[in-house]
Amino acid sequence: MTKKPIRVAVTGAAGNIGYSLIFPVAAGTMLGADQPVILQLVELPPAMKGLEGVALELDDCAYPLLAGIELADNAQDGFKNADVVMLVGAKPRGPGQTRADLIRDNGPIFTGQGDAIEAGAADDVKVVVVGNPCNTNALIAASRAKRVPRSSFTAMTRLDQNRAVGQIAKKLGVTPGEVKDAFIWGNHSDTMVPDVSLAHIGGMKASEQLAAEWLAGDFDKTVRTRGKAIIDARGKSSAASAAFAAIDHVHDWYLGTGSNKLTSMAIPSDGSYGIPEGLIYSFPVKITAPWKYEIVQGVSVDAATQARMDGSTKELLSEREAVKDLL
Amino acid sequence: MTKKPIRVAVTGAAGNIGYSLIFPVAAGTMLGADQPVILQLVELPPAMKGLEGVALELDDCAYPLLAGIELADNAQDGFKNADVVMLVGAKPRGPGQTRADLIRDNGPIFTGQGDAIEAGAADDVKVVVVGNPCNTNALIAASRAKRVPRSSFTAMTRLDQNRAVGQIAKKLGVTPGEVKDAFIWGNHSDTMVPDVSLAHIGGMKASEQLAAEWLAGDFDKTVRTRGKAIIDARGKSSAASAAFAAIDHVHDWYLGTGSNKLTSMAIPSDGSYGIPEGLIYSFPVKITAPWKYEIVQGVSVDAATQARMDGSTKELLSEREAVKDLL
Repeated sequence: MTKKPIRVAVTGAAGNIGYSLIFPVAAGTMLGADQPVILQLVELPPAMKGLEGVALELDDCAYPLLAGIELADNAQDGFKNADVVMLVGAKPRGPGQTRADLIRDNGPIFTGQGDAIEAGAADDVKVVVVGNPCNTNALIAASRAKRVPRSSFTAMTRLDQNRAVGQIAKKLGVTPGEVKDAFIWGNHSDTMVPDVSLAHIGGMKASEQLAAEWLAGDFDKTVRTRGKAIIDARGKSSAASAAFAAIDHVHDWYLGTGSNKLTSMAIPSDGSYGIPEGLIYSFPVKITAPWKYEIVQGVSVDAATQARMDGSTKELLSEREAVKDLL
Repeated sequence: MTKKPIRVAVTGAAGNIGYSLIFPVAAGTMLGADQPVILQLVELPPAMKGLEGVALELDDCAYPLLAGIELADNAQDGFKNADVVMLVGAKPRGPGQTRADLIRDNGPIFTGQGDAIEAGAADDVKVVVVGNPCNTNALIAASRAKRVPRSSFTAMTRLDQNRAVGQIAKKLGVTPGEVKDAFIWGNHSDTMVPDVSLAHIGGMKASEQLAAEWLAGDFDKTVRTRGKAIIDARGKSSAASAAFAAIDHVHDWYLGTGSNKLTSMAIPSDGSYGIPEGLIYSFPVKITAPWKYEIVQGVSVDAATQARMDGSTKELLSEREAVKDLL
């Protein structure tokens, strides 16, 4: 074992997404088959007994790459020296709660986690927020960790991208690997904007193979409302698909996008495409080096897409307004 | 995508182990990063709605290697043309049930699945039984599938091996990848016999680094009773660790044992080490080619180990006796 282990901190580690996430991470699926990892697993105090059981199971897998397991019941301890922080845990929406309520409920969690990153994570820590509302949670955490470059804080829209790719593959009867360069603009919410203007399948543009009516109708609706369809069928929210999207997000950020030219990440806007600077907004990005992304420029945005991108911007601005006292 | 997809059938696919298993299989963890797979997912009729939700999530992962997903509410449909069959689903032990009750309850499930393998699986199908009592379930299934070589039916003791490796790694403060060639004899039950006589760590024999008292005491007990410890901590049985052990079992059978010289598989005995021919018994095996194993010969068995191996044999003979009308 020659490479230095990468320390990966995960919150909500004993929850459903966490349980689907950490085993493949320990198996090398996220950071590579020759990259040792140390897992720093964080849970709320009442969930620590369950987390200890998860740690026993990790021991029982005898993963050759798993160089250590550390458990913590608080972020300050859990994020110490972390190279990658995956913020999975969040308070789910309760009955009758609005999105605004959800945002206010989660705010204090992410101020605390931002503070913990500031206090102890590695200088070049990379953060992905999975817990919803993930864009605004990432904004809050980033605002508390002044020592860490803003660009190191990201939120996950890869699940939405993967859903878009999956729908296109199904529609065309191809494997998902043949569908390239679809991406997502905006907020990880139902204002998100799936964009296939750069997508291609077997060397042909997606727009030449897919009916505009389907793209604007069923496709768009399915991608945006998929979470509910999963709950209806499973009786539980998406877990494994969210976990593997988080794996894809970090994998591509570190190891590149392979045969895709781009991927979707919600990142602090630099003003590109008129998105207000600093908002955590999903863009198409290319990976130029390990842990380096650049927004893909020059995407031609039609009027309908622009209107929806503006809608997502508006929503994110109102989310920011709702938590401005925390920033 | 150049390779022909491998068809992998999984029973109990919407259960806890199934849910931890099929996503990494689709990601390439089991059969290799360049090997397309088709998943043939089997559940009981009442679980089909949940399974449909799992299939939606598989779509949502956009796995490049996942060339197809087929769902079935019966083994006859589910095993058609399958190259690999993973028998995960089984009836768990109810309150007050003895092991003998469990064996009788599971018998009819595995006669039916053996019949379905006989009727429709690929001629060179490879089978691993995870559902307990897995050795005897494998014996039943094998006895019904006359067309398929007996040696293609195996049961999983890799979880026990991984637990042994994990315990040794923890004791010595090394990563599990440094612990090589520990294995398991016998039945996947508390009569199993962990054997470290061939094990080595960093070029030194395990027996030179580990106290005999620990090996005969805490180590042995921990490996044999680990399932209960997991339930006590998690409130649920092992799922991810069982799933990844099944992945390891099939991975190594197909792709070899890497830097280990051997692995543990419960396989039909050929009479080696005095184990009655035909019993499904865990041996140390080496992988000589894809899907070819050979029992490692010449292991020096001391009197204490022999006595325990005999105990496991006796248990397996009584399990066979209990289901003889099904064979």
